[in-house]
Amino acid sequence: MIGAVAAGTKTAAKIKRENADAEIVVITKDEHISYAGCGLPYFIGGVIEEEKELVVKTPQEFKQITDIDVYTKLEAMSIHSKEKYVLAMDILEGNVKKYSYDKLVLATGATPFIPQIEGADLQGVHTVRTVNDAINIRSLIDKGAVSKAVVVGGGFIGLEVAENLHGKNIEVSIVEFAHHILPSFDEEIALYAQNYMSDQGVNIYTCEKVISIKGEEGRVKKIITDQREIEADLVIMSVGVKPNTKLAEEIGIELGVTNAIKVNNFMETSIEGIYAVGDCAENVNLITGKPAWYPMGSTANKMGRIAGLSMTGDQKNGLKGVLGTTIVKLFKLNAGKTGLSEREAIKQGFEVETVIVPANDKAHYYPGYRQIITKLIADKNTHKILGAQVVGEGVVDKPIDVIATAITFGAKVEDLENLDLAYAPPFSMAMASTILASNALLNKLAGRMNGINSFELKKRLDELLVVDIRDEASYLIRTIPGAIHIPSEELIYRADELKNNEEIVLICKVGKIAYLSYLKLKKLGFQNVRILEGGISSYPYELV
Amino acid sequence: MIGAVAAGTKTAAKIKRENADAEIVVITKDEHISYAGCGLPYFIGGVIEEEKELVVKTPQEFKQITDIDVYTKLEAMSIHSKEKYVLAMDILEGNVKKYSYDKLVLATGATPFIPQIEGADLQGVHTVRTVNDAINIRSLIDKGAVSKAVVVGGGFIGLEVAENLHGKNIEVSIVEFAHHILPSFDEEIALYAQNYMSDQGVNIYTCEKVISIKGEEGRVKKIITDQREIEADLVIMSVGVKPNTKLAEEIGIELGVTNAIKVNNFMETSIEGIYAVGDCAENVNLITGKPAWYPMGSTANKMGRIAGLSMTGDQKNGLKGVLGTTIVKLFKLNAGKTGLSEREAIKQGFEVETVIVPANDKAHYYPGYRQIITKLIADKNTHKILGAQVVGEGVVDKPIDVIATAITFGAKVEDLENLDLAYAPPFSMAMASTILASNALLNKLAGRMNGINSFELKKRLDELLVVDIRDEASYLIRTIPGAIHIPSEELIYRADELKNNEEIVLICKVGKIAYLSYLKLKKLGFQNVRILEGGISSYPYELV
Repeated sequence: MIGAVAAGTKTAAKIKRENADAEIVVITKDEHISYAGCGLPYFIGGVIEEEKELVVKTPQEFKQITDIDVYTKLEAMSIHSKEKYVLAMDILEGNVKKYSYDKLVLATGATPFIPQIEGADLQGVHTVRTVNDAINIRSLIDKGAVSKAVVVGGGFIGLEVAENLHGKNIEVSIVEFAHHILPSFDEEIALYAQNYMSDQGVNIYTCEKVISIKGEEGRVKKIITDQREIEADLVIMSVGVKPNTKLAEEIGIELGVTNAIKVNNFMETSIEGIYAVGDCAENVNLITGKPAWYPMGSTANKMGRIAGLSMTGDQKNGLKGVLGTTIVKLFKLNAGKTGLSEREAIKQGFEVETVIVPANDKAHYYPGYRQIITKLIADKNTHKILGAQVVGEGVVDKPIDVIATAITFGAKVEDLENLDLAYAPPFSMAMASTILASNALLNKLAGRMNGINSFELKKRLDELLVVDIRDEASYLIRTIPGAIHIPSEELIYRADELKNNEEIVLICKVGKIAYLSYLKLKKLGFQNVRILEGGISSYPYELV
Repeated sequence: MIGAVAAGTKTAAKIKRENADAEIVVITKDEHISYAGCGLPYFIGGVIEEEKELVVKTPQEFKQITDIDVYTKLEAMSIHSKEKYVLAMDILEGNVKKYSYDKLVLATGATPFIPQIEGADLQGVHTVRTVNDAINIRSLIDKGAVSKAVVVGGGFIGLEVAENLHGKNIEVSIVEFAHHILPSFDEEIALYAQNYMSDQGVNIYTCEKVISIKGEEGRVKKIITDQREIEADLVIMSVGVKPNTKLAEEIGIELGVTNAIKVNNFMETSIEGIYAVGDCAENVNLITGKPAWYPMGSTANKMGRIAGLSMTGDQKNGLKGVLGTTIVKLFKLNAGKTGLSEREAIKQGFEVETVIVPANDKAHYYPGYRQIITKLIADKNTHKILGAQVVGEGVVDKPIDVIATAITFGAKVEDLENLDLAYAPPFSMAMASTILASNALLNKLAGRMNGINSFELKKRLDELLVVDIRDEASYLIRTIPGAIHIPSEELIYRADELKNNEEIVLICKVGKIAYLSYLKLKKLGFQNVRILEGGISSYPYELV
């Protein structure tokens, strides 16, 4: 076994449970094994206090429980697949050792991608991948050496680190090359989270490219983007990771289109008897059936179990694929995604229908309820669910998991609307958010409702007549640029103010009153009316 | 529309949205419409402060939003299905009015069942069904008239009321006729919740029957069971509800085997043009395909939508069935269930395999994680999931909803193990509880693991050799009656102390170390070893 974080140790333990006679050697060049990579941002922020909490098991504990030897600081140098042995170097002593195998497992993980820019090697420029990375960053903070930090990259780890640094009273700026943070999310959902992060006091610069990092006496001082200079005592490089495939490539193991190691459903590579698990291995996207690469701790564990079972003879249930389900907590906001975004789905050639529906996570009369916004994406022709994104201060992991489960079984929108989900006031509305969203999407698919989302509306503001139907006070405080005001109660009587030929968009607070008004205008013969889905409360662009 | 709580108002609103020309009259004998029945216990306890929070909409608000007239305090007296009209009496004025219809919807709800015992009519004996019930109870409490209360019935509403009364510094006793509270749950899960409620200071008496209620000057003083007398200023009768079917029966509408009104997938009764929705209507259990009756607010809303669509011409997606998914919060403990319990599944003729697996709801290193215990029940032959129960202080609604969704699609245990669920430390373990449980159940189904649950172990304590493999201190503090002690490290060397022919059960804290020790004993040739699933931490019976 080469590699000993999640997938490596899981595979080893599973083999041993299935076959107590198996002789297993796990080697890793790292100092720590079986550590919680996803916990590193929280260790940096002190939410997780002790280093030992991050490390699930030491080599000694692992040995005691599983009877498996793990050698740390031992780096695999080469694989000799004909003769079936691995040469590995003891990093401390410098000598090379030989390990024979019948079967070999590559759990070599992934490495942060570091842009080739000036200053990337300065002191104070860090990645967040290993326990030592986190220890080093925290030690800088604890020494009081960090008052300003820049996080390069607005993906999950970058955002989690930003939150944790902010919690340490550090002024944090995020620089993201894409149009918005959370690049895998659709814009209108990502911007909702982005606005929220900004409101918490994190500086966010998007569409911005880091050009170089400047330092003094070898320590980072500031970061230069194509737009500005930002002072920094600490720079976190979080622009993505790449799979560690060097050892595999050297012996001709096939890589996939994603550049990760290609494996079958049972984690076996193109060379018989050699398996790959965890972040170095490729996945299949369950929806598209195409190769994809989602390096996730949850998937690593599943791969480990499957490889272990498969290597000891049980080849019944392989890994059919994954959905790229992800979730992040940003201060009190949660954002989750499963399946394809609208943008990804269109790129994959699907004709999509989507809907955005705000709801509460608990009964509206139960204390502590919070709003969540669900975006549901379906194939317009087959009605199959393609993906979902849920964002808000309320519970989002539950609806994401429900929809992920449904997608796994090829669910259509129709299959969601009658799910018998757990209901009591402290846990859900009587009509759960997912059911409300599926109802709304069915209304759209059946032509009973015509909606537009924030993203689309923003793009077409100039062409559309936006009618704010809330009360006058709300309209005066803040509305969408160019919106005229007709309160919902007056809409029918003042319908002649709306020319029948124009494309009209009704906006209210969350979309519900607009829907009822929409029905009234339709009845009056208006053909070209739409509602802003999710209302003004989900509109993440400029208001006036 | 006869009835105006959840299903009635939902149906009316949906019809109006589909057909703005529809003339709809909703009548109800009640004073309130569209109220949150499930919120009543929380109003009693003051968690929900204001009466208006309970009432989703007043008739005026409902009229303004939907343009539908609702008449309260108007009781339907008879239906004349040939002539298509309803006679209804104005409760305040006493006069009878006639309402013609093309289509009729019965949303008559359900009524609490009140045992025919002496004293059931005393002042201070209440049911909890309507807003006025809750107002009356709270007003007694607010006057300081209640220091001791008895709740008859340990179902969901009874338990929620008990918690809320306890929160008001009232001494609360629950009397339940069945062997345990939460009668629809399997014993070992229900007892876990029951022990927890007892620990919070609620007196619980099970296997006890209420014989009579005694009063003074017309007010309740004490309750007499077949075991004891309990003083009480307040008695809550919460022994179940029965569907209100009188109007339907009078005109020959067919009832189902559950005594609720039989309806097809589109909520139409045996008389064409007459629909029944909500608590008065029967359901189908999705797993058994047999009639069932689960009066739930969540189902009522779905029925209303379907009836509304169906009555206006859209008969595409009917309600195929429900799972009886339920959930309850008891102090900080949560308990949820979907599908069949083990006991129900056996009764339905299934050959079942089950497993009990404790897990954490978040990463073990993330602050605030809590334990949950999952019981998963599957068909031994087809591996189809039949049901699940989850209990603990952690998040239980999420796993219940995931499993409910999976069951809806006919999932097998194998389908659960690779679900791509949302993972980040604040939301889940890398291996989510549901995945861990499915892994364990697959181990059992494949003969890789042999477990016994608390319920079974308790019954067979005398026949089994129970070996506590925890450390000595833990063993001395508390263990299962009759257990001998061999710490896991010594098990192999002391294996000769365990006679090979005896049936051995290994117990540890949560079941994990016992599983590893089980594998070691198997390797030594022990044929008849089992582990206590969930370990001693899930064992709800007497410890010594």
